[in-house]
Amino acid sequence: MMTLPKIMICGSPRWAHDEVHALFDGIAQVIVDDAPTRAEFFSRFQPGGSYDGTVGIYRRNVSAARIGIFDRELVEGLPPSVKWIAHNGAGYDSVDVHACKEKGIRVSNTPGAVDEATATTALYLILSTLRHFSNAERSLYAGTWKTPISSGNTHDLTTRTLGILGLGGIGLHLAQLVHAFPMRVLYHNRRHRTDVPEWCEYVESLEELCARSDVLSVHVPLHEETRGLVGEREMRAMKRGSVLVNTARGGVVDEEAMIRALEDGHLASVGLDVYPDEPRVNPRLLAFPQNALLPHTGTRTRDTERKMEVRAMTNLRDFLMTGSGKDIVPELR
Amino acid sequence: MMTLPKIMICGSPRWAHDEVHALFDGIAQVIVDDAPTRAEFFSRFQPGGSYDGTVGIYRRNVSAARIGIFDRELVEGLPPSVKWIAHNGAGYDSVDVHACKEKGIRVSNTPGAVDEATATTALYLILSTLRHFSNAERSLYAGTWKTPISSGNTHDLTTRTLGILGLGGIGLHLAQLVHAFPMRVLYHNRRHRTDVPEWCEYVESLEELCARSDVLSVHVPLHEETRGLVGEREMRAMKRGSVLVNTARGGVVDEEAMIRALEDGHLASVGLDVYPDEPRVNPRLLAFPQNALLPHTGTRTRDTERKMEVRAMTNLRDFLMTGSGKDIVPELR
Repeated sequence: MMTLPKIMICGSPRWAHDEVHALFDGIAQVIVDDAPTRAEFFSRFQPGGSYDGTVGIYRRNVSAARIGIFDRELVEGLPPSVKWIAHNGAGYDSVDVHACKEKGIRVSNTPGAVDEATATTALYLILSTLRHFSNAERSLYAGTWKTPISSGNTHDLTTRTLGILGLGGIGLHLAQLVHAFPMRVLYHNRRHRTDVPEWCEYVESLEELCARSDVLSVHVPLHEETRGLVGEREMRAMKRGSVLVNTARGGVVDEEAMIRALEDGHLASVGLDVYPDEPRVNPRLLAFPQNALLPHTGTRTRDTERKMEVRAMTNLRDFLMTGSGKDIVPELR
Repeated sequence: MMTLPKIMICGSPRWAHDEVHALFDGIAQVIVDDAPTRAEFFSRFQPGGSYDGTVGIYRRNVSAARIGIFDRELVEGLPPSVKWIAHNGAGYDSVDVHACKEKGIRVSNTPGAVDEATATTALYLILSTLRHFSNAERSLYAGTWKTPISSGNTHDLTTRTLGILGLGGIGLHLAQLVHAFPMRVLYHNRRHRTDVPEWCEYVESLEELCARSDVLSVHVPLHEETRGLVGEREMRAMKRGSVLVNTARGGVVDEEAMIRALEDGHLASVGLDVYPDEPRVNPRLLAFPQNALLPHTGTRTRDTERKMEVRAMTNLRDFLMTGSGKDIVPELR
C-alpha cells in the first residue's frame, strides 16, 4: 500500500471541516497539530515523532497562542521535509517569508477570498466617519438621542474623493463599492495599473494622494518597507478635516503621529479595524467621539472564513497534486 | 412702489441662509415666524398682524417645538391668503395634506434631495446588522476587544437578497449601492416600474417580498394606508434569521410584533433609524446586541440639509414666479 504524504493542520478550520477532509481524501494523511508549546511542537518533528515527515502545513493565526507566530526561529526549526506553508489569511506578516525562502519553503496566502469582506469593512468605516454614525449610535445607547451630534461636520459621500493606498484585490473592490455613490477614486501603487476601470485615477506619489483625498484608505501589506509608511509627513500632507481609514495592518500607520493629528484637529476622524499591538487599543483613540473603531473584524464573516479555509487548503492540495499551488506570496514568486 | 408678496420662514434654514435670501431678493417679502405658541401664531395672522397676507410658508419640522405640527387644526386656522406650504423634508406626515387639499393649499416636499443620505443610512444599517459591526464596536469600547462577537451569524452581502419595500428615489438609490456588491435586489411597489434597471426584480405582493428576502428595507411614506404595514403576518412571512431595516418612519412597522420576532429569534436583528414615538426609543430594542440603532440621522448631513433647504425654497419661489412649483405631494397632484 502506497504511503500518503503527511500534511499538518496548524489551527483547525472553523466552517469547512467536511470540505477539508474531502479535499485530502486519498491524497494525504492529515495530522492535527495540538502541541501546547513551541518546544513540544519542535520535539514532535524528531525522527519517529508524530510530525516526522510532514511536507505541508496549513496555518491559521489562532495557532500563535500555542506555538507563537512563524517567525525566523520557528521556520528555521522546521525539518527539510516541509516544502509548503498554506497560510489562511491575506496578510502574512505572521510568517517570516524571507526565512522560508532561505529554506526552500514556499508560502501561499488567500488574497481573493478576503476582498469583499475587507472592502466592506473599509466602506463601513468610511460611512461611519463621514456621517458620524458610530457617534450617533453611542448617543442613542447612552439615552441622549442625538444630542451630541452636529450635522456641521457630516458629509455625503458623493462629490468627495477617496484615496486608495494599494490598489490590489481589496482596494479595487472598495473602489467599485464607492463608485456606486459615486465618490471620485484616486489610487497610488508601486506601479500604474492598466487593468482597472478608467475612473480609478493613478497618482504618482503617496504625498500627492494624501493631498488630494478627503478620505485615505490603507490597503498595503505590512512588511519592512511599509512599516510606518503613513507617517507625520503624509498625514500633514492630507487636507485639514480629512479622514484616515485603516483595515490593513496597524503598523502601516504611525499611531503617535495619527493621534497628534486628531488632537490638533488636522484629521477630522479615523476609522480603524487594526492596531499596532492587538488586542491592545490605545485608549487615547477612544477619546475622539467621531472615530469609528472596530476590533479587527475585517474578514470575520462565516462566508468569508469558509472561503479562506477552502482556498488555503486548495493551495496545499494543488501543491501535493502538481508540485505547485496558487497564491504564492510575492516575495517568493 | 409694488408691494411684494409675503412669505414666511417657519423654522429657519441652517446652512443655506445666504442662498435663501438671494432666491427671494426682489420677489418676496420674507418674514420669520418666531411665535412662541400656536395661539400666538394664529393671532399674528389677524388683519393688521405681522403675518397678515402671507401667501406661502416654508416649513421645517423644528417649528413643531413651538407651534406643533401642521395638523388639521393648524391648517384650518390658516387664513385664505396662504396658498403654498413648502415642507423641508421627504416625509410629510407632519403636514395634514387632506386638510390642505380642502382649503386649496398646495404642499411640496423635497424628495430627490434626501435620496443619497437616506439610502446611505439604510446601507450602513444593512452592513452593520449583517456583519455585527455595531456590536463589535460596542465590544471594543467596553474594553473586551471582540469577545462577544461570533462569526457564526455574520454574513457577506454578496449572494444575499435585499427586498425593497417602496422603490422611489431612496429605494432606487439603495438598490444601486447594494448592486455594487452585488446583492440581488427585489422590490414591491403599488405598481411595477418599467423605468428601473432589469436587475431590480418586481415582486407582486408584500408577503412574497418578505418570504424571498434576507434583508427587508422599508422605504414607504407614513400615511393611513401604510401605518403598521409591516406587521405580524409580514414578519412571520420573512425567513427565520432575516433582518429588517427601517429608515422611513417608525409607524410603518408594528414595533410590538418586531420585538416579539426578535425575542423568539425569528428575526436575527433589526437596523433602525426611526421609531414610532421619537425621540423615545423602546428600551427593549437595546437588549439585542446584534441590533443597530441610529437616532433618526437619515438626512443629517450638511450637504443634504443644504440641498433640502434650497430645494424647498425653490419650490416656493417657483410658485411665486409661475403660479405653481415642483414636488407637489402625490395626494395633491
